[in-house]
Amino acid sequence: MTTTTAAPTTTTKAYVIDKAGAEPTLQTITLAALGPDEVEIDMQYCGLCHTDCHMRNNDWGISTYPMVAGHEGTGVVSKVGTRVAELKVGDAVGIGWIRNSCKQCDACLVGKDNLCGAYYQGTYLGEGAGGWGRGGCQLQGCFAKVMHVDARFAYKLPAGIALDAGAPLLCAGVTVWEPIVNFVKPGTRLGVVSLGGLGHMAVKLGSAVGAEVTVLSSSANKAKQSAEMGAHHFVQYTRQGELEACAAKFDVIIDTCPAKLDLDAILGCLKFGGTYVRVGIPHKEAQTVSTGLIPLIFTGKKIAGSIVSGSANTNAMLRLAASHNIACDVKVVPFTELTSTMDALSKGEAGGHFRYVMKWD
Amino acid sequence: MTTTTAAPTTTTKAYVIDKAGAEPTLQTITLAALGPDEVEIDMQYCGLCHTDCHMRNNDWGISTYPMVAGHEGTGVVSKVGTRVAELKVGDAVGIGWIRNSCKQCDACLVGKDNLCGAYYQGTYLGEGAGGWGRGGCQLQGCFAKVMHVDARFAYKLPAGIALDAGAPLLCAGVTVWEPIVNFVKPGTRLGVVSLGGLGHMAVKLGSAVGAEVTVLSSSANKAKQSAEMGAHHFVQYTRQGELEACAAKFDVIIDTCPAKLDLDAILGCLKFGGTYVRVGIPHKEAQTVSTGLIPLIFTGKKIAGSIVSGSANTNAMLRLAASHNIACDVKVVPFTELTSTMDALSKGEAGGHFRYVMKWD
Repeated sequence: MTTTTAAPTTTTKAYVIDKAGAEPTLQTITLAALGPDEVEIDMQYCGLCHTDCHMRNNDWGISTYPMVAGHEGTGVVSKVGTRVAELKVGDAVGIGWIRNSCKQCDACLVGKDNLCGAYYQGTYLGEGAGGWGRGGCQLQGCFAKVMHVDARFAYKLPAGIALDAGAPLLCAGVTVWEPIVNFVKPGTRLGVVSLGGLGHMAVKLGSAVGAEVTVLSSSANKAKQSAEMGAHHFVQYTRQGELEACAAKFDVIIDTCPAKLDLDAILGCLKFGGTYVRVGIPHKEAQTVSTGLIPLIFTGKKIAGSIVSGSANTNAMLRLAASHNIACDVKVVPFTELTSTMDALSKGEAGGHFRYVMKWD
Repeated sequence: MTTTTAAPTTTTKAYVIDKAGAEPTLQTITLAALGPDEVEIDMQYCGLCHTDCHMRNNDWGISTYPMVAGHEGTGVVSKVGTRVAELKVGDAVGIGWIRNSCKQCDACLVGKDNLCGAYYQGTYLGEGAGGWGRGGCQLQGCFAKVMHVDARFAYKLPAGIALDAGAPLLCAGVTVWEPIVNFVKPGTRLGVVSLGGLGHMAVKLGSAVGAEVTVLSSSANKAKQSAEMGAHHFVQYTRQGELEACAAKFDVIIDTCPAKLDLDAILGCLKFGGTYVRVGIPHKEAQTVSTGLIPLIFTGKKIAGSIVSGSANTNAMLRLAASHNIACDVKVVPFTELTSTMDALSKGEAGGHFRYVMKWD
């Protein structure tokens, strides 16, 4: 005789998007039982990223519903799975865009889980998108009060990282950190295109590691903010002649602008041997790259893409942020205003370099 | 009263191309007087590169006439300028695609003259193309019996480098060596597309530094040659399914194929975070790069161009070639057969992985 005992489940409140474009509404959802490698987290804050708005609307055709979005979350560990050794109850942790990976490929073995050869599991990408959905329920993001996440991807926040202003480090921060780790050295002349949520973190992290940072923005009124964040130079690229004056100036350009820019003009600002890195998900019309190979060959330049950071670089970034007192510029808003805040972000009304951070009451 | 004494000039025989597409004919040319930083070289051999054929025909619109082509030359130093310390009469030297550079920019200061921010001086690019033409005569390439070249770019050949089989190291060799230095480490899974003059050197140099080398060729009969040169694997990419079987296999791909291939299919063979490098000058229809940014972003891949090597990497390659007994596979032909040999190369009749090397009598 076999007795089947159902694994204990957890219920939690969460903001659920029931179909493409729908408003997130507060509902009760059921999480699968805590796995042996997982931690349960009492969530406190979550940064708001354009990706959440795009995923809400299924702009990229990869959304599944019902959806609980959010991937810049912070909270406190409330339970640990039976095999978890590196975290304990009470630890402050952050959750980003990756909730699990194969842990076995060359990349995962060195903590470059963002380059997992079997694709990592996006925090709220449904089971269909990867191999590690734990079954029984839709994977949920950080717009939930309680989360179950693999301990490797619940990053312990070093002392000094605030749970509110630190939350966007988990996506905006690591997204620009990855090309900094890969391509920037002290003394590197770094160009940062666009001073939004991603760009402002590129300025802070880039200048922290010793780069000479130039902000390239369409808006003259970003000059003061750029300087305050640590940028050494400012270029309003929409002004006649300003981009031409940057010819062959930068070793590395991190392009965070979602709109389509003149790629050849941007590449012209790279020094010979320099690297252009595209981060974030640009608008549809900016999702192809087309340029001449001959200039690329004769100048030894590189065009690269980059997606968040793996666990090793994320932990390194959090340590650096703590020691350099680096946080995001944020506006904290209660979760009850989630819909209006997402709408404002979608419409481009954020108007600056800061990040909205939602707060549970 | 001022007395002007004309600097002594040198005359030499050389194969001169008088106009676009013309046969090179043996003529006597006059070189500008030997500069204080230059050496005079008694030339012995010169490898034949597709670039010489394209330049003869002005395929790229940058040729000037009368032209003396050739940029894979070897010879023996016969005179040294007053400021030259690093070479002496009797030294065996090689000449490549670069005859001078600004020597002052960040790149030149560390021997990356191929990335000279003021553009290097191509060996036989006329005065209009750069700032260092020494005036008075067209800059001449290695199809001349005597050359005057800046001592920095007359590379002393280590013992063991033969003047005939070593000649193509100066262009074919350094062209593939540069991405090996920049992107390949021991254990790197290196894909080499096409097994011609460039490709076969990529196999030899890549395997010498410890890469696991795969040749991707359209021709099944290159399999045996590939293995003999040190390749570990062979893929006939024109066979159904062979390229698909290489999905996410290579860390680095060096593309030496002059024809237009399916870039997305090639990029698909890169592991996440991998680098595709285009070397050589591809055919016109293959001179643009167009691909989706989203796959590039989500896989962290890079598209790079690369042009020959600077003085530091060229010297390093020559040392490695000498210590590993690496030379090009060559067919030596007397200079009297220059026209027919250039024609054969232009028509693709070379038929293999070897390089033609012209010999002075």
